[in-house]
Amino acid sequence: MPRIRDILHAGEPGQSTTIQGWVRTKREAKGITFVEVNDGSSMAGLQVVLSADLAGYDAVVKDLTTGSSVEIGGTLVESPGKGQRVELQGESITVYGTADGETYPLQKKRHSFEYLRSLGHLRSRTNTLGAVFRVRNACAQAIHQFFNERGFLWMHTPIITASDCEGAGEMFAVTGLDLANPPKTKEGAVDYSQDFFGKPAYLTVSGQLEAEIMAMAFSNVYTFGPTFRAENSNTSRHLAEFWMVEPEMAFCDLTGNMDLAEEFLKYIFHSVLEHCPEDMAFFNDRIDNSVLATADNIINNTFERITYTDAVKLLEKTDRKFEFPVEWGIDLQSEHERYLAEDLFKKPVIVTDYPTGIKAFYMRLNDGGETVAAMDVLAPKVGEIIGGSQREERLDVLERRIQEAGLPLEDYWWYLDLRRFGTVPHAGFGLGFERLVQFMTGMGNIRDVIPFPRTPDSIEF
Amino acid sequence: MPRIRDILHAGEPGQSTTIQGWVRTKREAKGITFVEVNDGSSMAGLQVVLSADLAGYDAVVKDLTTGSSVEIGGTLVESPGKGQRVELQGESITVYGTADGETYPLQKKRHSFEYLRSLGHLRSRTNTLGAVFRVRNACAQAIHQFFNERGFLWMHTPIITASDCEGAGEMFAVTGLDLANPPKTKEGAVDYSQDFFGKPAYLTVSGQLEAEIMAMAFSNVYTFGPTFRAENSNTSRHLAEFWMVEPEMAFCDLTGNMDLAEEFLKYIFHSVLEHCPEDMAFFNDRIDNSVLATADNIINNTFERITYTDAVKLLEKTDRKFEFPVEWGIDLQSEHERYLAEDLFKKPVIVTDYPTGIKAFYMRLNDGGETVAAMDVLAPKVGEIIGGSQREERLDVLERRIQEAGLPLEDYWWYLDLRRFGTVPHAGFGLGFERLVQFMTGMGNIRDVIPFPRTPDSIEF
Repeated sequence: MPRIRDILHAGEPGQSTTIQGWVRTKREAKGITFVEVNDGSSMAGLQVVLSADLAGYDAVVKDLTTGSSVEIGGTLVESPGKGQRVELQGESITVYGTADGETYPLQKKRHSFEYLRSLGHLRSRTNTLGAVFRVRNACAQAIHQFFNERGFLWMHTPIITASDCEGAGEMFAVTGLDLANPPKTKEGAVDYSQDFFGKPAYLTVSGQLEAEIMAMAFSNVYTFGPTFRAENSNTSRHLAEFWMVEPEMAFCDLTGNMDLAEEFLKYIFHSVLEHCPEDMAFFNDRIDNSVLATADNIINNTFERITYTDAVKLLEKTDRKFEFPVEWGIDLQSEHERYLAEDLFKKPVIVTDYPTGIKAFYMRLNDGGETVAAMDVLAPKVGEIIGGSQREERLDVLERRIQEAGLPLEDYWWYLDLRRFGTVPHAGFGLGFERLVQFMTGMGNIRDVIPFPRTPDSIEF
Repeated sequence: MPRIRDILHAGEPGQSTTIQGWVRTKREAKGITFVEVNDGSSMAGLQVVLSADLAGYDAVVKDLTTGSSVEIGGTLVESPGKGQRVELQGESITVYGTADGETYPLQKKRHSFEYLRSLGHLRSRTNTLGAVFRVRNACAQAIHQFFNERGFLWMHTPIITASDCEGAGEMFAVTGLDLANPPKTKEGAVDYSQDFFGKPAYLTVSGQLEAEIMAMAFSNVYTFGPTFRAENSNTSRHLAEFWMVEPEMAFCDLTGNMDLAEEFLKYIFHSVLEHCPEDMAFFNDRIDNSVLATADNIINNTFERITYTDAVKLLEKTDRKFEFPVEWGIDLQSEHERYLAEDLFKKPVIVTDYPTGIKAFYMRLNDGGETVAAMDVLAPKVGEIIGGSQREERLDVLERRIQEAGLPLEDYWWYLDLRRFGTVPHAGFGLGFERLVQFMTGMGNIRDVIPFPRTPDSIEF
């Protein structure tokens, strides 16, 4: 069966066709009924015209309520309506499933996104969520294409892990033990030797360290998988479960890393605009009228590149009042990042070489030791969208940094081995996939860009 | 920098180039040293010739042990050696990282796969594991391309879930509670209302039910993500964490499902042969000499399609002695499946319409009620590679089936809603990604086709 998207783009008047989908709206006139049928392939549905001479017209039309599912055969005709080339003159119709007008929750009126979250099993049938998940898919496909075209291998790093990438805590525990009555050691502690993995296990917060392993064999790799935070953050930007993209490149320094990040963002935005123009126009029209301008800004500007030290000087010089005062050594806040990207440079900015004290142990120490070869890509409207670094490839420096971070060296034996045997300069970055989709669509709440959001006290569906 | 794969395929004598990679072997002759450098882009490395007139020759050659990392600039010259068009006459060399010959674990001699598993951070640098992960990537990319070309949307179904797809148990628990001292209710049970999600949470065993939600909005979708089993199975075919592919199609019956499964397998095998011919030849040569014939068999045969009832008749008729006796109603064992695919039909076989009693509640009940519209794709050498079904779309039948399975109806309120509002015939299947890679490469143990296997008592890296 053809998809409605294809019929809308390429269907010709006179052509016979059959469509399958769900009724969005029905309008009855004298002896004629107009039905809009949507199959999820595009924002726009196909208008179907049913005449009273259709067999069983009255009974069928009664069943064609919003949400009912149908198969309709007929002939395409030129559409007199605006904004559509063709419509379908229905000649045969099967109603697969009805949707009772009294109980079907998605009637024509607009619903709040919050209410729709309670209908996670139905909300994808609305215009906005439909567009979100088509764009999300286009974005995900573009990510694979980008890396595949460049010879990067997709590597599946582990979800269940015994190691903690950044010593950051806030991890979910995974266990096969009976929580009500776990086995205990003589000392009264939980006896993890009896658990499935023989030791405490967690959900991963990042695949980076394992991606480094794979980059030391295949040169260029990337991960694209779920990651987790057990943070009790009830905000519009946090999820307990989200997808992350993490490329890792051997024989690469911070400049190469910046080049890749810039090329990557441009590619993804370009690809989504190419594949989902109608959905993107919808977001610009209904959700955030800067969405298309932002995409254009990213695609057509060379990203600014400045050091953290220079960025702090610029922030100190401005008359803009910030909630968080600026001085060398602070972590940049969203207001600072947005000022740089949105107001000062009016385009994406890559800030590099952050103070050692505010960044993770694995980032490469610059000469002098005060800064590390870190980079954050800041975008207008949202601030940080990508974070990355050149990794510390020197064994002695890395050992010292792990110890200074208060982490046990022995936990990192294999990570250190990568520096013992054929170590090379290497670099990579991480991108929160849902934040990218949120940024791209202008959706206000991150819970509305992932099909089934996991947040504190929320695990339905 | 060019990748070695590209140089081997397209490099021309006389061309200047620079390569980066790791030394696999070194052979010293009089006044000349041959080094094979590999960057993971292909099985074959590039042979580099270093002459004694190179600056610092003696010191450099000493550092070029197996596993060391280098950048070498020079000129491509025609290779006198067999099986390679060009080699590199080295003119400048940087050794990034050494690898001590006494302590680097991957010396030239062959290692058992079991030993290599203890070196999960290094084993991808060996010929076999390198080939495995290139093929795995090619397989994964082909999966996305297959679905994307056909308008299927990649949907991320949840990893952490409160529902249990098949009532099958064997799930890992996920918790933010302190296992040593969880809060208790007055009755002494664990007080999950204080846990992160406010109720017990688990790692998903399948994304199917949520994929059905998305298919009811977008018609054709697929999942490709990690799934989990807390089964204490120490076999060469089981992992606690593995990746699964699950397409789901609205307006689709069992025949459409079979058509998709057949087209899918042919496409993936064809694509991997096209993109990794050298790696596949290696597997055929070194691991399992039926690998290429099997791929050929899948690509070039129309899959046989028979009902379970007919399959049982064929199994009852043969003189072959089975360990498990055959009679209508049993679940087919691997020996039965392999007999059908390998010996009887000598090609993939799709068995359909299994007894209701041995299949899941969501499979569509056939007329008469004795069988359901299930299908298993059986392949020579391995048996079942794909399992799927048309789903029960009739509300009343589904409710009865859930109750008969002893499952609480209220847990399935949203799954039932899909049948209340615009229900349609739909179907889908599941493919264990690692089993596919194992099948394709002939690797004996599934732990060797995933970068970091999770099995009982094994969670390193």
